[in-house]
Amino acid sequence: MSEAYIGIDLGGTNVKTAVVSREGDVMGKDSRPTDAEKGLEAVLAKMAEGVDAALEAANLQRSGVAAMGIGAPGPMNWQTGVVFAPPNLPGWKDVPLAKLMRERLNIPAYVDNDANVACYGEFWLGVGKNVESMVLLTLGTGVGGGIVVLGQLLRGPDGTAAEIGHLCVRRDGRQCNCGAKGCLEQYASVSGMLRTAKKRIQQGGLDTVLTQMCGGDLDKLTGKMISDAVEQGDTFARWVMEETGRWLGIGIGSLINLLNPEMVVLAGGMINAGDVLFAPVRETARAQCFDVPGKRAEIVPAGLGGDAGVIGAAGCALVRAEQANPQ
Amino acid sequence: MSEAYIGIDLGGTNVKTAVVSREGDVMGKDSRPTDAEKGLEAVLAKMAEGVDAALEAANLQRSGVAAMGIGAPGPMNWQTGVVFAPPNLPGWKDVPLAKLMRERLNIPAYVDNDANVACYGEFWLGVGKNVESMVLLTLGTGVGGGIVVLGQLLRGPDGTAAEIGHLCVRRDGRQCNCGAKGCLEQYASVSGMLRTAKKRIQQGGLDTVLTQMCGGDLDKLTGKMISDAVEQGDTFARWVMEETGRWLGIGIGSLINLLNPEMVVLAGGMINAGDVLFAPVRETARAQCFDVPGKRAEIVPAGLGGDAGVIGAAGCALVRAEQANPQ
Repeated sequence: MSEAYIGIDLGGTNVKTAVVSREGDVMGKDSRPTDAEKGLEAVLAKMAEGVDAALEAANLQRSGVAAMGIGAPGPMNWQTGVVFAPPNLPGWKDVPLAKLMRERLNIPAYVDNDANVACYGEFWLGVGKNVESMVLLTLGTGVGGGIVVLGQLLRGPDGTAAEIGHLCVRRDGRQCNCGAKGCLEQYASVSGMLRTAKKRIQQGGLDTVLTQMCGGDLDKLTGKMISDAVEQGDTFARWVMEETGRWLGIGIGSLINLLNPEMVVLAGGMINAGDVLFAPVRETARAQCFDVPGKRAEIVPAGLGGDAGVIGAAGCALVRAEQANPQ
Repeated sequence: MSEAYIGIDLGGTNVKTAVVSREGDVMGKDSRPTDAEKGLEAVLAKMAEGVDAALEAANLQRSGVAAMGIGAPGPMNWQTGVVFAPPNLPGWKDVPLAKLMRERLNIPAYVDNDANVACYGEFWLGVGKNVESMVLLTLGTGVGGGIVVLGQLLRGPDGTAAEIGHLCVRRDGRQCNCGAKGCLEQYASVSGMLRTAKKRIQQGGLDTVLTQMCGGDLDKLTGKMISDAVEQGDTFARWVMEETGRWLGIGIGSLINLLNPEMVVLAGGMINAGDVLFAPVRETARAQCFDVPGKRAEIVPAGLGGDAGVIGAAGCALVRAEQANPQ
């Protein structure tokens, strides 16, 4: 069997591709606009172009690739490789993505949830490369997640496991887009952080640069403004970031009690806040969980940055190709 | 290798023993008082007597046993078989239980957490025998738990996984014995149910038979009284049971979002309340989680009753003996 694997990270804005060896060396990379607004066929063409460009950078042919993994936005059926209707890929409906890409490139193809794939990337070659179990939380508009236990990605029979953003941390709490109330992502994502900030500012009596930054329109507040205000020494912005960290710590403490993972990895732009975020996360998580697993679980920033997806997608393809064709 | 396995369920009150075949047939059983107050040596002697009695019932000798599994109260190191200091086994401190029993009976011995063992029993031969993943919650003084994923018991590197009672369902909620606040067991265990009842009764203005049942002393309220009052048609007692079910549903909804299990099993005396408990549990859990995993996860009462522990302990011994001595 060939030793090269393709990993594709299919986002609404960019499609990133990497050629990765069995040992985890990145041999070639590519990134280009997804052109999602042009529809399915255009996106498939972009993905194929990306594969060929990454192969050229790696000085390899399509025939030299053992398998290709695609991290795509959910919901999906990871077993059949059908992507249902991702909000940021307009016009996609029940797309048999694995089959279409396999036929187009003549390479075995596997599709997985993008957050799971990023988690697997960090587990295989990133901060988690020396552990057997870890949880990853991606802090963005929502809170995505991935779980590795017993050395394997936990997908569940429907592929819906690891919806960490939808742990309930407050019964009857903030309304979530999922229909439930009190989900972690309503407090610990960038949107959750903004909700916390707005709510407190609306109560009045605050002195904060955020009011000027958003021109007095709280709906224009962004995560970047909060980070910038923290850097400028704004006390309220710092409280907002810390409070977000405490909510995150509540969720992570529960995860530690439940899974006893060796590592909890945080990813996404928000982690650039460093200790302003991580200190309250760690403190709250340890107060929420038992001592022994609390000491075990390191809470650390992700290590692969934007490459976690492509590397993880290649790694998932490697594992799944071997399961499909045991040596 | 022999086909018979011993399972021991070591509780503070009784020590139960079963001889179980590789196929899961219970060939012999025993139950006797633990005599925990007489100390370690007396308890070990009781365990040995129980093994011999169960073997006699099965018409087998010690030499015909492949391995013995012991479900013991935590905390413990399941890998070394050392039990630290269980509250209901007075005088026990860092007891090398697996080693002591192996030496005493000349049978390979493995120790596991009692809730994990009960979960494995239901998974192997009980309601979960046709699934690959399940979560079990035991509703007693606290909320214990076990998790099976990918066909295996999830213990974690420290053996502390599946502390389901210590999911935080309400930040800054009720104080828990573990030191944290808002843990599920403060709402969804028998003690949690009693806290809910007392709190509401103390607010006054209620007409409920519970006040008479406990002779006006709310500290004398028991779970049995609440069940009895429900059966007598007491509206308030029914609300208490349903509210407990709703809290449980919040936790279970989170577990479903996180693990995408095929089945969620409830165990413990409280499940005798039947639909009064299960209806709000199911309704709240499904409202809290995504549709697809919510439809997947059956929420059902345990099937093995008091035998889950002995059967699960034997099953865990079978798996661990095979891992130790692969064929």
